[in-house]
Amino acid sequence: MHTDNREHFRRETKELPETFALKGIILDAPSPEKLRIWEEGYVICEKGICKGVYETIPQKYEGIFCIDYGDSLIIPGITDLHLHAPQFSFRGTGMDLELLDWLDQVTFPQEARYEDEEFAKEAYSLFVQEMKKSATARACIFATLHVPATMILTDLLEESGLKVFVGKVNMDRNSPETLCEKSAGQSLSSTRRWLEETEKRNYKNVRPILTPRFIPSCTDELMEGLAQIQREYSLPMQSHLSENPGEIEWVKDLRPDAEFYGQAYEKSGMFGKNCPTIMAHGVYCSFEEEELIKRNGVYLAHCPQSNRDLASGIAPAARYLREGMRVGIGTDVAGGSSLNMLRAMGDAIGMSKLYWRLLDEKIKPLSVTEAFYMATRGGGSFFGNVGSFEQEFEMDAVVLDDSSIPSPLRLSPKERLERFMYLGEERNVRAKYVNGKEIKRYE
Amino acid sequence: MHTDNREHFRRETKELPETFALKGIILDAPSPEKLRIWEEGYVICEKGICKGVYETIPQKYEGIFCIDYGDSLIIPGITDLHLHAPQFSFRGTGMDLELLDWLDQVTFPQEARYEDEEFAKEAYSLFVQEMKKSATARACIFATLHVPATMILTDLLEESGLKVFVGKVNMDRNSPETLCEKSAGQSLSSTRRWLEETEKRNYKNVRPILTPRFIPSCTDELMEGLAQIQREYSLPMQSHLSENPGEIEWVKDLRPDAEFYGQAYEKSGMFGKNCPTIMAHGVYCSFEEEELIKRNGVYLAHCPQSNRDLASGIAPAARYLREGMRVGIGTDVAGGSSLNMLRAMGDAIGMSKLYWRLLDEKIKPLSVTEAFYMATRGGGSFFGNVGSFEQEFEMDAVVLDDSSIPSPLRLSPKERLERFMYLGEERNVRAKYVNGKEIKRYE
Repeated sequence: MHTDNREHFRRETKELPETFALKGIILDAPSPEKLRIWEEGYVICEKGICKGVYETIPQKYEGIFCIDYGDSLIIPGITDLHLHAPQFSFRGTGMDLELLDWLDQVTFPQEARYEDEEFAKEAYSLFVQEMKKSATARACIFATLHVPATMILTDLLEESGLKVFVGKVNMDRNSPETLCEKSAGQSLSSTRRWLEETEKRNYKNVRPILTPRFIPSCTDELMEGLAQIQREYSLPMQSHLSENPGEIEWVKDLRPDAEFYGQAYEKSGMFGKNCPTIMAHGVYCSFEEEELIKRNGVYLAHCPQSNRDLASGIAPAARYLREGMRVGIGTDVAGGSSLNMLRAMGDAIGMSKLYWRLLDEKIKPLSVTEAFYMATRGGGSFFGNVGSFEQEFEMDAVVLDDSSIPSPLRLSPKERLERFMYLGEERNVRAKYVNGKEIKRYE
Repeated sequence: MHTDNREHFRRETKELPETFALKGIILDAPSPEKLRIWEEGYVICEKGICKGVYETIPQKYEGIFCIDYGDSLIIPGITDLHLHAPQFSFRGTGMDLELLDWLDQVTFPQEARYEDEEFAKEAYSLFVQEMKKSATARACIFATLHVPATMILTDLLEESGLKVFVGKVNMDRNSPETLCEKSAGQSLSSTRRWLEETEKRNYKNVRPILTPRFIPSCTDELMEGLAQIQREYSLPMQSHLSENPGEIEWVKDLRPDAEFYGQAYEKSGMFGKNCPTIMAHGVYCSFEEEELIKRNGVYLAHCPQSNRDLASGIAPAARYLREGMRVGIGTDVAGGSSLNMLRAMGDAIGMSKLYWRLLDEKIKPLSVTEAFYMATRGGGSFFGNVGSFEQEFEMDAVVLDDSSIPSPLRLSPKERLERFMYLGEERNVRAKYVNGKEIKRYE
């Protein structure tokens, strides 16, 4: 068979000196309106922390190790704010269904297979290998309800050098027997077991995040118990919100006590405020739900490819962002098929154009800078000072080579960035650094 | 820099014996409802013509040369029914604009550069090189208004082995001075010069197609003159139709004599019937326009990525297809950014899901088989018996390798086909045959 660049992929994280510089065409977006560009810049890293970008190396850093990426673009690491590791195995198949049928017929039977640790090991190895090669530096990941498989996943991710939140999933109702915890009590004790195991392993790169699948899968008792665990361990939380009309109707039936979907989470005390929270989708938020999201500082993971391919609809992500909501982008593999966060930016822009055309001409489509911000600084901020080359931010960087996208034109750095949103593939990711560690580099 | 498979790309068309077989997992869609699958099949080619698919090589063909593609999928060649070769250079940039502004600010200034033959040579060489590597076997291509540049393009395409229709563009109004023919007469005489030049070169793979850009760019006098040329030379014709609301309003102003956009073409005698015609887009056809399209057998080139990225809207392609309209898929580079027709199938499905969700729940989304049909047999039929492995069809085939899309699952051929629609990239195209000639093969 033909050779491709995967053969040249180095599996081992390269040891770099504590202090080094990367040289290239550097871009970041510290705010949704601001694109910074250094046509020839040096970004300095010291002990995993970014010490700024300079046109020449400052005196203080003279003589430090420097990797010259020439004409390549260097952008901040990208954060995939929402995806399902166990669904990677069947990405791009079974897409003829809407959310609830897709869960029942495709997703749940596949997730049930992670009971089998051998299968989990094989499937998660492939997943982590592809994550390493992608443009993603950080991610918030759903596992399955199985503790042993989740530990296999977190071990592999720890070793990858990516920085991630991973959640063992909770689900104790409305799920097939093969993928349902027997009771709230059993789900909660599994969760404690997972947390203790995670604590023991003393991970540097992986942190746990509570992950009730969504309201339809979780009894009130389970939600109450998770909130209790959340308080004990000070854990963040991730789940799904207002993705699909059928789902929203179902939540109304299941939780008549809640005036809207998000309130069902809030009533258990897990909807932002002191519990850093990511909600995936938010395609159909009511006015009250949006207000609560803003008030509580809940993150929204906008998943454009998934929203299209599960026929969910279009989330008003541009409006959310401009109204000050915390918005990042997620691939939602396997509601979305591709791990490629470069493409996810272009999909976010594309969906915002259709939103403008078909649903609300008052909401201008996302700009290149806004999409770039969402995928870097927007989602990255869930991890702290992450997602730009500002001083004292954690040093995550992705080096992008576009020699596989030939053009006779002399394109500007911004045009080249835009092109990656429409045409970027894994092979364009020439190198990746997370918190100062080298995760990937092609020679 | 890292190696990628482009280094291994053979530039020369390989000479194969007149009669040969390809072995692999074979799929085609002779109708929108029918997906045929041979889990281990041989497709036989004799003098460029398909002699059917068999589970074992028939006695008549015993001992013929056979290329065994093992576990790879073999599908019919794909037809890109609408794209602009000169726009390839800036694909994926300047996508912040709607159609008419995008034409004025991005496209027209770039197309004007093809006045320069050196530039044309460089730009078109890159375009044809990428077309060779893609999954596209046949295409209907817009050039620019420049005759010398168009000849450069057709020479390169002839050599590529792809089968194409190429049109020198006509535009004599509402265009910048740098990209506007001085009069209808000048446009028509250029067109005759181009046709004579094309005839002289005696191409095997390239055929001319009349290409008035769209009604706003063409005076009535020009359209009449082109219709005259059409009758003299028996030429097919391609143009744009009902893509964008602003464009449609403009056409109403420009052609008060026409009750709807398509009628403006029909009045000049170039809208199907005896003039095989492709209209790109058809996002906003009126009932009367649809009826005329059906009655006259006009082809519609559905361009889902372009319709999203130029914020045009969503064409009801699923309904068109089910109502018996002739529908193929186009990338519309550079309204769409990617030459990748595998992805265009997934985009057609995705857009049809949004159409169902947001615009008309009576129109079920496109199935995998329907999208596959549109991209192969649907568009291919513009070229005659093309786009499936039926007996006596021209032998176009694409061999797809999905080893770069790892999965722990044993996927069915149909699932693997579906995956290419969401995740397929150029590197997955292992080999390509057009009319029995080998265009590309990785060892």
